[in-house]
Amino acid sequence: MIYDEFTVGQKYAVKKIITTEMVDAFAAITGDKNPVHVDGEFAKTTRFGRRIAHGMLSVGIISAILGNDFPGPGSIYMKQDVKFFKPIYLEEEVEIEIELLEKIEEKKRLLVRTTVKKSSGEIAVDGEALLLFTQE
Amino acid sequence: MIYDEFTVGQKYAVKKIITTEMVDAFAAITGDKNPVHVDGEFAKTTRFGRRIAHGMLSVGIISAILGNDFPGPGSIYMKQDVKFFKPIYLEEEVEIEIELLEKIEEKKRLLVRTTVKKSSGEIAVDGEALLLFTQE
Repeated sequence: MIYDEFTVGQKYAVKKIITTEMVDAFAAITGDKNPVHVDGEFAKTTRFGRRIAHGMLSVGIISAILGNDFPGPGSIYMKQDVKFFKPIYLEEEVEIEIELLEKIEEKKRLLVRTTVKKSSGEIAVDGEALLLFTQE
Repeated sequence: MIYDEFTVGQKYAVKKIITTEMVDAFAAITGDKNPVHVDGEFAKTTRFGRRIAHGMLSVGIISAILGNDFPGPGSIYMKQDVKFFKPIYLEEEVEIEIELLEKIEEKKRLLVRTTVKKSSGEIAVDGEALLLFTQE
């Protein structure tokens, strides 16, 4: 893809399952071993009733989609804002959507909306990313 | 810690090495296998000259520190904004600093600045997080 081919309003969406293995590995890498993420027995005693994924794990997946898929190779990550609205449970299938909100032509930048929707359709995570897009 | 004990200006800082193992595992979890992160031979041909960590990996570590250490247990992550300024190389030691910017007393919220500094002292990642702090 080249910069000129992007059009405002363009969307890319993909479904992903947030697996137990992903949550366990994310806990090991980051050091976030909060029992609500890693301990099923403890998680039962919380208001969630079961283990939930780390919020930032889904943002890691957003960052991968931005780099790999849309806008894809050539993207340089400048900025990401996220708000966390709903928990994502382990083994839940979510839909990650990227929407091109704005092209800042003179700087070859792209402003995109980044959302993670739960299987119920509710928004779990919402935000915006700013990318510099440089074709090699 | 209880909410009333936090004071504006309070800081927490910790040094961490961003290891090769962490970057490889983050690539596997998120699917971000951009060769600048995972392929040393390719990375040599880029302007970075060697492998760099995923920007969002350091934000995952920030999220762990917020939950574990400062503000610590009782924190509920509402919002995170980050800007990426400089790359972090593999096996580089970074300093992550959290500074309490504002207490929103009536809502039991804490606004903190979150920075990741390179060993050179340059800021690699800068941002703000908003947390709800509920003692159990």
